[in-house]
Amino acid sequence: MEISFPKKKKRIHLDYASGTGVHTDVYKAMQPYICGMWANPSALYAEGVAVREVIENSREKLARTLSVRPGDVTFTSGGTEANNLALIGVIEATHRKGRAYTDMEIIATRIEHPSIMETLVFLAGRGVIITYVPVDNEGLIDIQVLETLLNTKTVLVTFAYVNSEIGVVQEVKKITRMVRKWNEAHSEHVLMHTDASQAPLWLPCALDMLGVDMMTLDAGKCYGPKGVGVLIHRQWVEIVPAVFGGGQEAGLRSGTESLPLIVGCVTALLRAQEGWQSRSKAITLLRDRFINLLSLVPGTVLNGSTIHRVANNVNISIPGFDTEYAVIWLDAKGIAASTKSACGAQGSSGSYVVREMTHDEARATATLRFTLGEETLETDITTATKVLTSFVLSMREESEEATSR
Amino acid sequence: MEISFPKKKKRIHLDYASGTGVHTDVYKAMQPYICGMWANPSALYAEGVAVREVIENSREKLARTLSVRPGDVTFTSGGTEANNLALIGVIEATHRKGRAYTDMEIIATRIEHPSIMETLVFLAGRGVIITYVPVDNEGLIDIQVLETLLNTKTVLVTFAYVNSEIGVVQEVKKITRMVRKWNEAHSEHVLMHTDASQAPLWLPCALDMLGVDMMTLDAGKCYGPKGVGVLIHRQWVEIVPAVFGGGQEAGLRSGTESLPLIVGCVTALLRAQEGWQSRSKAITLLRDRFINLLSLVPGTVLNGSTIHRVANNVNISIPGFDTEYAVIWLDAKGIAASTKSACGAQGSSGSYVVREMTHDEARATATLRFTLGEETLETDITTATKVLTSFVLSMREESEEATSR
Repeated sequence: MEISFPKKKKRIHLDYASGTGVHTDVYKAMQPYICGMWANPSALYAEGVAVREVIENSREKLARTLSVRPGDVTFTSGGTEANNLALIGVIEATHRKGRAYTDMEIIATRIEHPSIMETLVFLAGRGVIITYVPVDNEGLIDIQVLETLLNTKTVLVTFAYVNSEIGVVQEVKKITRMVRKWNEAHSEHVLMHTDASQAPLWLPCALDMLGVDMMTLDAGKCYGPKGVGVLIHRQWVEIVPAVFGGGQEAGLRSGTESLPLIVGCVTALLRAQEGWQSRSKAITLLRDRFINLLSLVPGTVLNGSTIHRVANNVNISIPGFDTEYAVIWLDAKGIAASTKSACGAQGSSGSYVVREMTHDEARATATLRFTLGEETLETDITTATKVLTSFVLSMREESEEATSR
Repeated sequence: MEISFPKKKKRIHLDYASGTGVHTDVYKAMQPYICGMWANPSALYAEGVAVREVIENSREKLARTLSVRPGDVTFTSGGTEANNLALIGVIEATHRKGRAYTDMEIIATRIEHPSIMETLVFLAGRGVIITYVPVDNEGLIDIQVLETLLNTKTVLVTFAYVNSEIGVVQEVKKITRMVRKWNEAHSEHVLMHTDASQAPLWLPCALDMLGVDMMTLDAGKCYGPKGVGVLIHRQWVEIVPAVFGGGQEAGLRSGTESLPLIVGCVTALLRAQEGWQSRSKAITLLRDRFINLLSLVPGTVLNGSTIHRVANNVNISIPGFDTEYAVIWLDAKGIAASTKSACGAQGSSGSYVVREMTHDEARATATLRFTLGEETLETDITTATKVLTSFVLSMREESEEATSR
């Protein structure tokens, strides 16, 4: 008699914006340094010098890819820390030069990631003026409005290159061009920071092209290890550290450097940038097919447009439905999805991003985010659509039964 | 004809205080999580929940080992960040409750690690009173003097359990007992923080025994991975975060958690604490033998005592000699050593630690630190002694030649 085991069902992952695995090539690059070459890079002897060399080579490679100088690259513990350092670092540096907190303004949108939003709240507590530029119903910054907001108090404009929830891609080049012109006309130096954590796999990130003064990157969102990120800051940007100690990373980020994390981070970012065009093209096709399929699921509505949208993001609302329960339903059927950003997943007050874009509470409290990865297949999205359809129909039946009772 | 290759000479590492390799057991524990189980622990689906479980299990294990509650454990990017969070976190929390910066005092020693010293400078800039309690010529805190320094403005007393340069082990229990008594007598709540980054391999670290309110730990100094550390803070300690974002680590340390780093950190700390007694005993014997051997090298003098000294630290001065050059000499002969802490290695103004202890400039500018690891052998220390002797003799000859010319 043959014993048959139940087949372990393949899981379908559709939440790549919250994190990716470590790519084989990235792992291979990190591997020699996980147990080997463990000396402290600040040490003066051969082993320390060798570690320092690998770190500086990594820094140079990343700098070349992003068209900046090696000195513009600061490794951090991730995107969150990089965002904190960019905002607090610039404000504190300007404050040290004698400018009052209340004489400084940061302009941002209301749809930023918590690591920006919460840092802004902190800085507002110090007295810094925080001004929010409105976004349209697709999440796009209105550049004309932004221009009217700029003033002599403005120190910094910050916004995500790619929004982590709805995937809107801001017109970075247009914005930087406008700000640069404004700076020239008014003899000001308003700085531009963009959180590009969700960008490297799908969009070009070189700073000479984007024109921003600072950029945040996160290895854990593009097939690199978690726990390491980057803040790019051009040489004319004055920032002061937020972590104090041994003066590593040119004094900007104290703490013994982790060689495997830095190598993994750079390998992942280089790999992401190398193939972004073909990767983006392929996944955009799949994304649009997915959007089409989902549009057939009764009651769903797409958040954002398909034009200014990153290749791997699909975000819908099912007004009137409990989409947290939808995530659990999908999970039970083998599909990993989310309602919003993982970093904002603790609260259940809906998506502040979709609320800000749509001013529609029913949509804001019923979001569902699918984010595709390089390994996503056509069958993954058809299965996901089928399961979501079954969810919607089942919920409808239940509510109809409840009504007719 | 046989071709003979030159044998690759074995290097002797005697700088374990600056960093250790990753132990095989630690690597084995981390390994499944480096590429696997990469979901975001804030995610609501099965994969995210599984990651969260491993993190919380790790936290519980560490809490049990250190006799604290799981909620008292916050994972950080390393010892430096933990020290920053402890000091800034407590001061800012107290400030938020309405106390002026100028009404708060931190008492520390002048021999702390840069991650404490520089954070104190930062807080002094905010107006916080920083008072330094003197240490004796062995680096020990004078508890009687410390007691006279305590006053109603004192918020926090901080000192390293084990000094990273000279290895002095402070009498933590005695100090906490004194502070607790003082608190009771004066109805005050002066908090105690200790940086225990150099302790777990050699000394007991349970907080019920030590009595401190906060403790810093660093995986990279005890055969765990670099890039991860811990701040222990008892439930009665109010701290506010220094990094803002998604609210991970109970709001105290935002940023997506790294599962392999956390598992590696906890495995390393548990392993370190499990065997500290026998490990400490064995290495103390070797250390004392090394100290005896070095005492025979002409011109050397031991910094600190052998009584209040961690098992693996040997710190000598060779007054009148260039010990940075000694490090290079030793390196050329296959031995890795340092002059002082790697985090303070950039400057060449000597050791502020030895200067503070000895008030002897010649000793402070000619320090040499050897720190032993679990894998250190008797032959390592005899070879190191021989090489150092050859250095001293050779330098003497040179200077004698120069004089006679």
